[in-house]
Amino acid sequence: MTTEIVQALIWTGKNLDVLDQRQLPEIRHYDTYSDASGVAEAIKSMRVRGAPAIGIAAAYGVVLSVQRHFESKNYYDSVFADIEILAQSRPTAVNLFWALDKMRAVLNEKNDDVLAAVTNCAIKIHLDDKAANKRMGEFGADLLLGIKGVMTHCNTGSLATGGYGTALGVIRSAVARNKQLNVFAGETRPWLQGARLTAWELSQDGIPTTLIADSAAAWLMKSGAIDWIIVGADRIAANGDTANKIGTYSLAVLAKQHGVKFMVVAPTSTIDWSLENGDNIEIECREPCELLPACYDTANSLVSGWNPVFDVTPAALISAIVTENGVILNPAEQENGIRSLQK
Amino acid sequence: MTTEIVQALIWTGKNLDVLDQRQLPEIRHYDTYSDASGVAEAIKSMRVRGAPAIGIAAAYGVVLSVQRHFESKNYYDSVFADIEILAQSRPTAVNLFWALDKMRAVLNEKNDDVLAAVTNCAIKIHLDDKAANKRMGEFGADLLLGIKGVMTHCNTGSLATGGYGTALGVIRSAVARNKQLNVFAGETRPWLQGARLTAWELSQDGIPTTLIADSAAAWLMKSGAIDWIIVGADRIAANGDTANKIGTYSLAVLAKQHGVKFMVVAPTSTIDWSLENGDNIEIECREPCELLPACYDTANSLVSGWNPVFDVTPAALISAIVTENGVILNPAEQENGIRSLQK
Repeated sequence: MTTEIVQALIWTGKNLDVLDQRQLPEIRHYDTYSDASGVAEAIKSMRVRGAPAIGIAAAYGVVLSVQRHFESKNYYDSVFADIEILAQSRPTAVNLFWALDKMRAVLNEKNDDVLAAVTNCAIKIHLDDKAANKRMGEFGADLLLGIKGVMTHCNTGSLATGGYGTALGVIRSAVARNKQLNVFAGETRPWLQGARLTAWELSQDGIPTTLIADSAAAWLMKSGAIDWIIVGADRIAANGDTANKIGTYSLAVLAKQHGVKFMVVAPTSTIDWSLENGDNIEIECREPCELLPACYDTANSLVSGWNPVFDVTPAALISAIVTENGVILNPAEQENGIRSLQK
Repeated sequence: MTTEIVQALIWTGKNLDVLDQRQLPEIRHYDTYSDASGVAEAIKSMRVRGAPAIGIAAAYGVVLSVQRHFESKNYYDSVFADIEILAQSRPTAVNLFWALDKMRAVLNEKNDDVLAAVTNCAIKIHLDDKAANKRMGEFGADLLLGIKGVMTHCNTGSLATGGYGTALGVIRSAVARNKQLNVFAGETRPWLQGARLTAWELSQDGIPTTLIADSAAAWLMKSGAIDWIIVGADRIAANGDTANKIGTYSLAVLAKQHGVKFMVVAPTSTIDWSLENGDNIEIECREPCELLPACYDTANSLVSGWNPVFDVTPAALISAIVTENGVILNPAEQENGIRSLQK
């Protein structure tokens, strides 16, 4: 059996191919995008998801915009309008805004060959993310020596990043060192990223995974089967408070109660240095229809749904934040939060 | 809009009509059973589920067996063989064994009119359960005066009982007193009893419900929206440790951490007086296919699933156990556990 790390985003030099993650694991299909609004729609509709991957896709979206407009007179206005459309696609992942800021900065340099400049910047964002993943993988795996089992939540693998993974990158690196490590994944309702994406991505890479219902995590912890919970992040405040997929906060509270350690893995592009803590992170609420059986979906139904797709985990519940710039143990106990990671 | 409390089980005097809960909320269809093995299959396949309803269905299953066999010579052996088949249908709910014990006792009385005797016993089990539900509803609602919101898990309503509900009976009674009470239901993966059954049952009865993903419960608690979590039980040990739907233990740990109170509602037929504590309760594990996307379902897949369908909540995490015989507050603080409920 050949194994491979599946890629969410493939830049062809002219177009962006995006793996439609809504169809996984049944169907593996790439859509080809040649303009920014298409990429914005791919983000909004969750064909591509995961904070780092959203940032990378948006960067390529800017390249596609420049490609389309740079020969026209007011190309600058057209491109900045496209950047606005991309910025509106999802609200919580800070990587999106971080990547668009980088692209704006390149545009503002007014290079002679603007297309080459933005293309190089987007490719660098992509490659840097992958390299950062690998470094985080090694840093995180260093913390997992001699343990029996880990659990992860949502999908933080190659499908969510530039091509290796944040939390799943740590798990990849840890399994490479210890083939006996048991990997559990929460199915991650309502979108089932754990069941549909994480389990599939790991199986493509030859790594066995045991799925559980999200609500079974506490019972699994009580059984003693896992030593660490390892998750990604959509936005981290300067004190270490972490916004991530709904259910992360629940796992962190439960981990503390069961003596299970809790690791957050994210590139520094996920850190929002402007936020002192997590209180003001905007939490995206999606449509209740993602939760409700279709037959309830009528205006006068007595059944409604509350569907926040992220929550915020206080730094005090986090044992380690792992970034490409290094590791902060027990961030709540650090006087300056996680600012020592800022380079 | 007319409202109604939907019934899971209807005894026609000759057959048992069982609402096929696997097809809800889309399709409301009753299957008619005329023999015990059919009823056992209905329990095993989860057409009918919920500890009290399983017990009642099994009692009627014995009636059907007697009906079929009582004119033959060795009817006694045939009926006891059927009772064995019924006892094998599900392992965790103690109400099943409690109801079958009652039916065995009636058979052992060797009444002249055995069919009338077992029929009367089954109908009494059914009516007693409904009456017990109503009493629990009032006892539980007494604890909920002046609160804003409650959350429940799984389905513990008329669909799970003789016709009113345990935890959902308390919610019904509380809403009857306070129309402003906000009712949240966890969707309850993998079988979605909350989404498919509880929300539907309450909507039929005119009660608005807000569904959440199971993993969003901690975030909901943190928001301050709920004061109590109210659940049913499949088996309660004499110290108050409670086996219930997977995810109950998680909710109890999270409730404690958020200052949310935790109520278990069950008839005394759910109490297993032979168990000192919950350590030895058999926990049913169902097939991983209930969790896994179908395309993983191959023998050599690297994706497996761990699918325990119950867990055990220690008495120390329970604020109140509500039965038809009365209420025990903080059961872990009672010297004799919950034995004062034994009559």
